[in-house]
Amino acid sequence: MIKEHIVKSFDRDLESIQAKILKMGGLVEAAIANAAKALETRDLELAEEVRRNDKLIDALEDEINEDCATLLALRQPIAGDLRTILSVMKIAGNLERVGDYAKNLAKRTSILVQVTPIEGTAGAIRRMAREVELMLKDVLDAYIHRDAALAQDVRNRDEDVDQMYNALFRKFLTFMMEDPRNITACMHLHFIAKNIERAGDNTTSIAEQVIYLVTGETPEDSRPKADTTSYESKGEA
Amino acid sequence: MIKEHIVKSFDRDLESIQAKILKMGGLVEAAIANAAKALETRDLELAEEVRRNDKLIDALEDEINEDCATLLALRQPIAGDLRTILSVMKIAGNLERVGDYAKNLAKRTSILVQVTPIEGTAGAIRRMAREVELMLKDVLDAYIHRDAALAQDVRNRDEDVDQMYNALFRKFLTFMMEDPRNITACMHLHFIAKNIERAGDNTTSIAEQVIYLVTGETPEDSRPKADTTSYESKGEA
Repeated sequence: MIKEHIVKSFDRDLESIQAKILKMGGLVEAAIANAAKALETRDLELAEEVRRNDKLIDALEDEINEDCATLLALRQPIAGDLRTILSVMKIAGNLERVGDYAKNLAKRTSILVQVTPIEGTAGAIRRMAREVELMLKDVLDAYIHRDAALAQDVRNRDEDVDQMYNALFRKFLTFMMEDPRNITACMHLHFIAKNIERAGDNTTSIAEQVIYLVTGETPEDSRPKADTTSYESKGEA
Repeated sequence: MIKEHIVKSFDRDLESIQAKILKMGGLVEAAIANAAKALETRDLELAEEVRRNDKLIDALEDEINEDCATLLALRQPIAGDLRTILSVMKIAGNLERVGDYAKNLAKRTSILVQVTPIEGTAGAIRRMAREVELMLKDVLDAYIHRDAALAQDVRNRDEDVDQMYNALFRKFLTFMMEDPRNITACMHLHFIAKNIERAGDNTTSIAEQVIYLVTGETPEDSRPKADTTSYESKGEA
């Protein structure tokens, strides 16, 4: 797709920006994976590394925004090219937010090592993070190859993440009800789970950007939204 | 500022987009205020109205993005004008997220009316929401008048919102520890408080966009960040 009209200088500029998007995406995937691993293995050094690396992610977003602004000013793209640049900026913004959620997860690890672990939850959180990590990987592939079907697949998979969150939420609530001494740990673990669920939502937004880029249409809001807890007498949306 | 070079057709287009930003901002201010009021007065009809109106807010964001893309394509602005358009799109995105937080607050109201209220918390949440509402009002004034000082003032006031959140968080934790029957209500109230705190963060991002627009520089990250709970053995950042 990109190769086809490699001749256009716009596309050469765009490729260098897309390389930064991929670099940013790789850092964000690693951040989510390492943050969840650090939580499970109670590895404060790895958690600290995640927090440090978030600065690189933020810096890349700034670079990408600057590059896009320059590209808009110099090449003055229209139609599809313009749409691409605007999508790139949105995608960079979504990636930056996912990075923030990973940083937040890493922050909490330094608190959670101080309290008794809640059995089986760190593993469940790592599996949830793994889902989002794979969604991120696929949505970036979908973006680079302009693959709307793969983007739609990523969009659908967010439902699994939502359901993992719902299951964890019920588990936390039960632990808190059973023993008030679990409240502090469960509050943190719950926020971690919710932030991973939000990371999934941001990945879904990237998928929707890709679908818009390829088809020119924003997917209607009929995506099965499976975090139903805010409609029940517990949980949040 | 706008009047000075009203002659430019770019500015005429920009004015119509800025009118939509103000309309969107007004809807978002009302959403936050009404959602908090609905919670305090347990007014399900008002809560439902907030949820309905969020669709108008989302639609306005789409319109603004479309208008900006068209303006970029037709006028091919550079330098300051280009920066302005890119900021408008970011500001619309922040406003849309604040609207989502208000919608989420309204959702929870329909759950919270089913459980015993936690004394004094709905009022505290309404005061917190009021702070954010005033920040929104001022940041939109700051944007329209390109007033970096007012934007900086808004940015500083986010610290008060963070501190209100911290105080509420401790209150909720105490209520939960005291009586497990408070856990469900406190979980919801806590998410509401956290979402209002996030609404404040998004308003702060708008303030930073305004400062960037006027001074050409992004404020350094030295803003006193007062939600410290994620560094303590409770709470979240």
